[in-house]
Amino acid sequence: MKTKFLKDQIILKNSFLCLGLDSDINKIPSHLLKETDPIFLFNKLLIDELNSLIVAVKINTAFYEANGSKGWETLEKTISYINNTYPNLFTIADAKRGDIGNTSDKYAQAFFKHMKFDSITVSPYMGNDSIEPFLKYDEKHTILLGLTSNEGSKDFQVSEDSEKDFYKKVLIKSQKWKNSKNLMYVVGATKASFLKDIRSIIPNSFLLIPGVGAQGGSLEETYKNGVNNEIGILVNSSRSIIYAGNGTDFVDYAYNEAKELQNQMKKLLND
Amino acid sequence: MKTKFLKDQIILKNSFLCLGLDSDINKIPSHLLKETDPIFLFNKLLIDELNSLIVAVKINTAFYEANGSKGWETLEKTISYINNTYPNLFTIADAKRGDIGNTSDKYAQAFFKHMKFDSITVSPYMGNDSIEPFLKYDEKHTILLGLTSNEGSKDFQVSEDSEKDFYKKVLIKSQKWKNSKNLMYVVGATKASFLKDIRSIIPNSFLLIPGVGAQGGSLEETYKNGVNNEIGILVNSSRSIIYAGNGTDFVDYAYNEAKELQNQMKKLLND
Repeated sequence: MKTKFLKDQIILKNSFLCLGLDSDINKIPSHLLKETDPIFLFNKLLIDELNSLIVAVKINTAFYEANGSKGWETLEKTISYINNTYPNLFTIADAKRGDIGNTSDKYAQAFFKHMKFDSITVSPYMGNDSIEPFLKYDEKHTILLGLTSNEGSKDFQVSEDSEKDFYKKVLIKSQKWKNSKNLMYVVGATKASFLKDIRSIIPNSFLLIPGVGAQGGSLEETYKNGVNNEIGILVNSSRSIIYAGNGTDFVDYAYNEAKELQNQMKKLLND
Repeated sequence: MKTKFLKDQIILKNSFLCLGLDSDINKIPSHLLKETDPIFLFNKLLIDELNSLIVAVKINTAFYEANGSKGWETLEKTISYINNTYPNLFTIADAKRGDIGNTSDKYAQAFFKHMKFDSITVSPYMGNDSIEPFLKYDEKHTILLGLTSNEGSKDFQVSEDSEKDFYKKVLIKSQKWKNSKNLMYVVGATKASFLKDIRSIIPNSFLLIPGVGAQGGSLEETYKNGVNNEIGILVNSSRSIIYAGNGTDFVDYAYNEAKELQNQMKKLLND
């Protein structure tokens, strides 16, 4: 799926919302625990209810790996269900991978060929030859960590002198990599004020913006500083939607939470 | 397993060799392909033959994930076999993980609790709160990427002015993190000349050194610049050992290759 299609979906649905499936066996409603695969059912019910409000789904691989190969089966079932039932949803494997070339090749196989995700998040630390095995898939997107939303982002990503911010070096240099047109970037919404700087470096790239909701970023500020001619932003929300309710009616609570975000997005898109 | 035990094993076996299981279905001997789980058998045969020559095993998760949940089953079988049969081998999940706190917690669960690896490789980009969920496991080791052995390491890890090398900032800052005593570091052997600098910053840490063999680093130079009072180095070799032969006698070729390295290590350790 290419970004042109994603933009069309955003306009069609009046939404740039990405649903994050950080689905945790310790947090899902207890009535699901008697099912064969509680996490898959939790995911399915959420997507069935919310698909009209969202344009993308982000699956956080850690929450599946915590249950080993059984968790990976749930991951496979979830992505397969989405691809088969809602092919217009843009899918993101939030996996933060990255390794030497022959190894990144295998990760790309796992997520792009075996599971058919549209995109994957990757870490820049090992440089171009760790990312190019992902970028060579022309119908896929590789979402590079830029500025993340956590407290620890201060350790290495930013400097006292903002001219020397390390994340800016990542943005600038990655634009020169082969097939860099297939890049998107992760930029934390808790740093919405940084988005002006970021847009001056990568005006045209799509941004995946986590940190609205549980992590506290403002949607309006994020939109105003992040939007470009292609719209160019996906805002992810995970915990504040999927754990909004905890009873047999949890999808209603999730729907309402997502609907409120989507209403705000509709207003921003049409103002 | 703590490093004191690892040091004792190194002295006992006259070896600081780590066997890297980058086991690729497209590269293993063809006679194994008729088996139920060819990769597990390939791994088992190698470890059964080589366990006296090695002190550690590094399993590269990408090669297993490429086969999805079935690959993860092979991964689980492999680590379980090693833990049950050769408990004195130090095990490394070469996974290059790292994410916000609640997510790294799940990765730590996957590799430390579910699969019982002794250690995992992690990427520093997201900073302290992305690594501390691993570091809090006191009987485990968290192996942080420092200077990697690939060409792309030049993109971000080093600078024209070596004083400003980014990887040095990673080494220095990470030493101040909570439970940093549980850290080890990945340092590519193709950069053995850098090891003096590295040892001046982290004199006491154990180093995992890939890049001897297929990637071309020199064992003697690596040893001389990397060894400390606790010995403090593990040298990994993957492809040059596991793919040394390709027939029904592939373990003999692998043994000879590992034995040659171990002989060199014995000499270095005893000189």
